[in-house]
Amino acid sequence: MIYFDNAASTRPAPEVRNIIAQCMEKFYANPSAKHRFGLEAHNRIREAARIIAAHLKVSEKEIIFTSGGTEANNLALLGSVLANPRNGKHLLCSAIEHAAVYEPLSSLKEKGYETEIIPVDRRGQIDPEALAASIRPDTALVSVMHVNNEIGSIAPLSQIGKRIKEKNPNILFHVDAVQSIGKLPVFPKRWEVDLLSASAHKFHGPKGAGFLYCREGVRLLTQIHGGGQQRKLRSGTLDVYDIAGMGEAVRLLGIDWDKRIAHMTSIKNNILSRMERMPGVILNSYPDDQSAPHIVSISVEGIPSEILLHALEEREIYVASGSACSSSHPGISGTLQAIGLGVLAQSTIRVSLSEDNTLEEAECFGDAMEEILRELAPIRKR
Amino acid sequence: MIYFDNAASTRPAPEVRNIIAQCMEKFYANPSAKHRFGLEAHNRIREAARIIAAHLKVSEKEIIFTSGGTEANNLALLGSVLANPRNGKHLLCSAIEHAAVYEPLSSLKEKGYETEIIPVDRRGQIDPEALAASIRPDTALVSVMHVNNEIGSIAPLSQIGKRIKEKNPNILFHVDAVQSIGKLPVFPKRWEVDLLSASAHKFHGPKGAGFLYCREGVRLLTQIHGGGQQRKLRSGTLDVYDIAGMGEAVRLLGIDWDKRIAHMTSIKNNILSRMERMPGVILNSYPDDQSAPHIVSISVEGIPSEILLHALEEREIYVASGSACSSSHPGISGTLQAIGLGVLAQSTIRVSLSEDNTLEEAECFGDAMEEILRELAPIRKR
Repeated sequence: MIYFDNAASTRPAPEVRNIIAQCMEKFYANPSAKHRFGLEAHNRIREAARIIAAHLKVSEKEIIFTSGGTEANNLALLGSVLANPRNGKHLLCSAIEHAAVYEPLSSLKEKGYETEIIPVDRRGQIDPEALAASIRPDTALVSVMHVNNEIGSIAPLSQIGKRIKEKNPNILFHVDAVQSIGKLPVFPKRWEVDLLSASAHKFHGPKGAGFLYCREGVRLLTQIHGGGQQRKLRSGTLDVYDIAGMGEAVRLLGIDWDKRIAHMTSIKNNILSRMERMPGVILNSYPDDQSAPHIVSISVEGIPSEILLHALEEREIYVASGSACSSSHPGISGTLQAIGLGVLAQSTIRVSLSEDNTLEEAECFGDAMEEILRELAPIRKR
Repeated sequence: MIYFDNAASTRPAPEVRNIIAQCMEKFYANPSAKHRFGLEAHNRIREAARIIAAHLKVSEKEIIFTSGGTEANNLALLGSVLANPRNGKHLLCSAIEHAAVYEPLSSLKEKGYETEIIPVDRRGQIDPEALAASIRPDTALVSVMHVNNEIGSIAPLSQIGKRIKEKNPNILFHVDAVQSIGKLPVFPKRWEVDLLSASAHKFHGPKGAGFLYCREGVRLLTQIHGGGQQRKLRSGTLDVYDIAGMGEAVRLLGIDWDKRIAHMTSIKNNILSRMERMPGVILNSYPDDQSAPHIVSISVEGIPSEILLHALEEREIYVASGSACSSSHPGISGTLQAIGLGVLAQSTIRVSLSEDNTLEEAECFGDAMEEILRELAPIRKR
């Protein structure tokens, strides 16, 4: 079995599974409980916060734990916009954001907010100058995805942050870093980012855990009300097991960073170079530093992606068509339309890697694709 | 070590830990992925939904997975009230609700909603007739906790449901069943309940998982926006591991139900009968069927609960003072005030049991309390 759908979800690392098992056995008290046993559970959470904060070079207090990337995006966007109603009603985001950014922003429409979408080029790149030119006196927030989940394009966050804050330092800058944590350095302070979302299951952590970096001083309106955990910003018993697992997953990212990235990049480049030699195959990801090391988007003229998916699945190779994160928009990809793929969007698959993949698997995938395209040649419309 | 803080959190059952470990190893695909490997993950979720639905005698489609009881309460209350704006702006709840019910209801105040609180008696019992008398033509929702988390009082849900629906079948009836699942039969349909919240870590499931029963036909406004999972009612990658673990925990509840409950009841009654013989000790829980089998609330005249907690902790016995679920309201208990404890609320501890506890532990606790009260006799104000 070749698992090439790591941008949808990764396999939890053995160390992560061990920590979760250990916490379930030993640290099951409520971390808000005032006795020593509760404190021990609480300490597991503090340790995770410390590891994550160190990884991002931020303060522990700036980490809010959530149930995942989607909740982190919702808290970041709804929480910050609604907490600062005087900052204006104009919101900006790129044309290739995930539904977990679009949908919260769209939900603000009924409250009088307007979301303006900044286009991207064929490579999925946003122009920082065009973004800056769209900033208005009533712009309250800008949201830009770090690494796009469908094609792997990397946004120039440093330039974008600089241009936003030059225009108006009060504009909040949110980054969806769900696909970049563990694949690229993520330094919110350096990039003048105010809010940054992440999801553990994208980097070999558990599902059901994520976090929001919220710069000290940024006000948030709580979105889940209750017992007042996490300084009243996010109520609910803290999920000690998955938070400890997420912390461990972040700790592992720091080990052999360069080697891990080089390994993924070599697999990616192997796939890219084999694919580009195939007739009628269009690549939407690139072998340069504007493209993440783990995502390869491939369009095949004349073959619907479902057919490709199925043919690969028969060979026990698992890839995605468009974005696998969404069950409600089957077949419709905002990103692939935004980069101008048109009808080709329906013939696009995504190969997404992790450090667990091998060059042999890439070769195997290349062979399978050659075979499949040969077999399907009769049905391809020219 | 004697763990008597099970109402705060329970230890995940070995079977639950095994299922979670197995899913992390084998079913790590994104359950929304369209390939076979994604379907296998999705099937784990469907199996959990089936088990939970069967336990409650409801339909699988009526189960929405959340990150826990707090999120379930927020979705139930905010989601249903805001989805039905024409149902009126009057909300009713009991005086002993958890903060995860009070706070979402309170947050509606700025939108023009009014929350009226129905008092309870010394035993924490709500009068269904008094509740019915408070219903107005503009009452939109009634929220009543099944088992109170601090004293264990059981609300007469069947009578309450009947009286609400007689008055007006359009009024939504929400029940916070976080403390009752696994301790009492929970049958939302029989009681005419529209919305019911639960949390896995209260019944030997994982933290970070819960569910909302939402009767078919009840409209909900989504509170977490994104990829459109769970029929757009709750976006975010489904947490396969914890959901499977929660399903397993519910399955285990059905095994030896009567024996489990009788076991907890015998421990509870042992504690009650020993405590009631101690001078200056007031019991806020009862040995009858209006009181849950796992919660014993004990007030000790003249001794602050922190001192009791500490003295017990020194003997490796872990109990709670008031509710351990909240970190923001230390020392303040709405429930203990509502039942009229007054200053005694500051001298109250909660012993909460699970099937893992033993009669020996109860005897040990009784001995410890006798010893502690003897030692502390000089400081007790009479």
